[in-house]
Amino acid sequence: MDSTTPSPAPSRDAIRHALDQGDPAALRALLASLHAEDVADLIESVSPEDGSQILSALKGQEAGDALAELSDQAMEDVLEEMSTESISEAVETMAADDAADVIGALSETQRGAVLEDLDEPEKQLVTKLLDYGEDTAGGIMTPEVVTVPFDATAEDAIRQLRGLQTPHDDVFVVYVIDKEGRLVGRLPLHRLVTAAKHAPVSALIQAPLVSCNVDLDQEEVAQLMARYNLVALPVVDADGRLVGRVTFDDVIDVISDEATEDILRMAGSSSREVAERSALRIAQVRLPWVIVGLAGGLTSGYFMSMFSGILKLALGLAFFVPAVAALGGNIGIQSSTIVIRAMTTGDLSYSGVWRPILRELRVGMTIGLVCGTLAASVAFLWFHDLGMGLVVGLAMLGVGCSASVIGSSLPLLLDRIGIDPAVATGPFITTANDVLGILLYFSLATILFGLVNH
Amino acid sequence: MDSTTPSPAPSRDAIRHALDQGDPAALRALLASLHAEDVADLIESVSPEDGSQILSALKGQEAGDALAELSDQAMEDVLEEMSTESISEAVETMAADDAADVIGALSETQRGAVLEDLDEPEKQLVTKLLDYGEDTAGGIMTPEVVTVPFDATAEDAIRQLRGLQTPHDDVFVVYVIDKEGRLVGRLPLHRLVTAAKHAPVSALIQAPLVSCNVDLDQEEVAQLMARYNLVALPVVDADGRLVGRVTFDDVIDVISDEATEDILRMAGSSSREVAERSALRIAQVRLPWVIVGLAGGLTSGYFMSMFSGILKLALGLAFFVPAVAALGGNIGIQSSTIVIRAMTTGDLSYSGVWRPILRELRVGMTIGLVCGTLAASVAFLWFHDLGMGLVVGLAMLGVGCSASVIGSSLPLLLDRIGIDPAVATGPFITTANDVLGILLYFSLATILFGLVNH
Repeated sequence: MDSTTPSPAPSRDAIRHALDQGDPAALRALLASLHAEDVADLIESVSPEDGSQILSALKGQEAGDALAELSDQAMEDVLEEMSTESISEAVETMAADDAADVIGALSETQRGAVLEDLDEPEKQLVTKLLDYGEDTAGGIMTPEVVTVPFDATAEDAIRQLRGLQTPHDDVFVVYVIDKEGRLVGRLPLHRLVTAAKHAPVSALIQAPLVSCNVDLDQEEVAQLMARYNLVALPVVDADGRLVGRVTFDDVIDVISDEATEDILRMAGSSSREVAERSALRIAQVRLPWVIVGLAGGLTSGYFMSMFSGILKLALGLAFFVPAVAALGGNIGIQSSTIVIRAMTTGDLSYSGVWRPILRELRVGMTIGLVCGTLAASVAFLWFHDLGMGLVVGLAMLGVGCSASVIGSSLPLLLDRIGIDPAVATGPFITTANDVLGILLYFSLATILFGLVNH
Repeated sequence: MDSTTPSPAPSRDAIRHALDQGDPAALRALLASLHAEDVADLIESVSPEDGSQILSALKGQEAGDALAELSDQAMEDVLEEMSTESISEAVETMAADDAADVIGALSETQRGAVLEDLDEPEKQLVTKLLDYGEDTAGGIMTPEVVTVPFDATAEDAIRQLRGLQTPHDDVFVVYVIDKEGRLVGRLPLHRLVTAAKHAPVSALIQAPLVSCNVDLDQEEVAQLMARYNLVALPVVDADGRLVGRVTFDDVIDVISDEATEDILRMAGSSSREVAERSALRIAQVRLPWVIVGLAGGLTSGYFMSMFSGILKLALGLAFFVPAVAALGGNIGIQSSTIVIRAMTTGDLSYSGVWRPILRELRVGMTIGLVCGTLAASVAFLWFHDLGMGLVVGLAMLGVGCSASVIGSSLPLLLDRIGIDPAVATGPFITTANDVLGILLYFSLATILFGLVNH
């Protein structure tokens, strides 16, 4: 398996030592064997000051490569610690899209200074890229594309390739454009290699052509490329002119990032906390949903207090509150998770709204029946009271049905009114199911025990 | 934005009508404008019988392309409904790796018949592929690779490309091998295009070479390719001989599938249910964890019953049980989610075990302090009882600490002993935190109210 680890990692202690000594030559020697991605990981695991020291120790190109691989938060933290000169030196070696990412992460004052240090064409390109929304096709695309005119030959296309400097990215596809710069076709490199010299590129174009607008959300860009197995997706402006390309590696990052974001949102957090170091700021990200959950718990308690009378008569009812809440919480999470994930991966596109809700209701009812029977048996054996068993069992069945319907319908509803379902569902659904479950349980108890309270 | 939808979708009603009429010509006409991926989505949204009818209506190549894009479960369901002849006809048009996927999904009896229908070299290749583990590099790789010997020239490499038929995949990289078939280098196509005819390939090789063993788990394959932005990863056997390549589109599927699996596991389900139609079988997948949660809830209830004495004296204590459980549940889910996700994306590789646990403890303590203060104020205002406020507040603080430590350490512990943390954490952590939270809360109440019970 040694072929999977292309370079042996230097020891953490040695790196620590070189950092403490402030010895750039030793650092450079230690990091020489690492890929840019590994250096970025290292920087993310140390303090921003140490990260800045590592980048300063590396030379321009190496520092630039590592900087480009940092997560957004880590990039911001490290850049704050670096001098404008070191940043400019690294940025000058970068492809325009990476340069735009770094410059976008700078403070206002640093940004102006670093932009001034770029040569004019690079500066214009970067300024234009900075205008696109961060999470759009324009924000993640590379503006460097190889284009040939529609009436060119295979030989012309190859000449274009020869003239090109591609320090960072491989070229897989040549794009064919018309006289106005509008995209008319894609020409995979392997077709070009095997074509006769004088073959017109118009005859080599591969159909169908899939492209996207510069404003398209990055999640949709990723879905499109994953769906059609595209190594690169050409990006066009409102007039159909080719302005860049999104490559498969950008999309891999987007898919991984979006999955992280969905997972964290469903847990009532956000990817904003991933590279965050301050416990206070992480708590700030998570607190809103924890407080929603707390408020829900207190509301459930308030409802319980409304049933004090029956609780005083049958204190045992209180002992099933955690089980009712747990069942509602788990079923709700399962239903909402499966629906949200199907929405994210586009698996619900053909199936409408009612199918998933009905599917979940049937599953929730089945689970409610099984758990209701189990819990009712426990209640009966524990209290030797048929009424208690009946109340607990029916409550579980009811909770199974209501939790699955709420869990599956709420994400669909939120999506319809334009709210990202992953943001609001996790803790919210658990809370809603907690409150409803308790209400249902004690209402059933009141009815079945023939008692009315307060 | 119309450029993002390469073909207009036929109406669902028209397709339904053609299916009900059993009219293959009409079906074929309706589906002609769809990509294979869109046909696959359609098949997944109808019954297996209808899916089989759609595939039979399409011609061999089109049926094969759509079949290859189906999810595992949908593929099995549809294949059960198809005749061996239709399957063979579709499989003959497929690349070896897709053919192996289809044949692997067949029943024993169908498998032999379909394998017999293949020509000998294809049959051998597919049989070999079927031997690799489904979730390994061997299981997802394409065996078709373009190779040139180490002592060849650029012109030889181009001649290899010309001779190649690549119906399904683009070729981006040519691999350089030695006399024993061992992989020695990668040669991106754009270098080949721009090279002089007689340049030796040994001089064109791009360093560093990243490859993987045929047994490597697909999740690690995906991490490797995402990390090093590889469009294709060469796969070697135990002797270092090149046996295939994994391409970026396989990896995009793996990343998306693994994210789905992680998300569903954390909710106490599994991706086995995604294409499942029977409510009973879905319930079977989810029930184990729901029952764990139920058992935890009942255990919490049992502990509550041990504190009946104090509950009879201060019934109000029961009203805070849902809030204590909600706080522990939410904090535990957040801590475990962030740790599991960091483990999946490889972000914890440099940071050891204690750092994430301490980080979560600090966050949990902060959240516990805020929520404890809030809940204590509510308790005091509600019951005008300082002791009640103190018990509730301190319990919340304690739950914040314990839930965050359990949530962050359990996934790390499970990973260390070789269990996938996503499988066992979601409902398990919630349950553990429920039980512990209740115990902590009532123990505090007993101590502070100076009472001993049972």
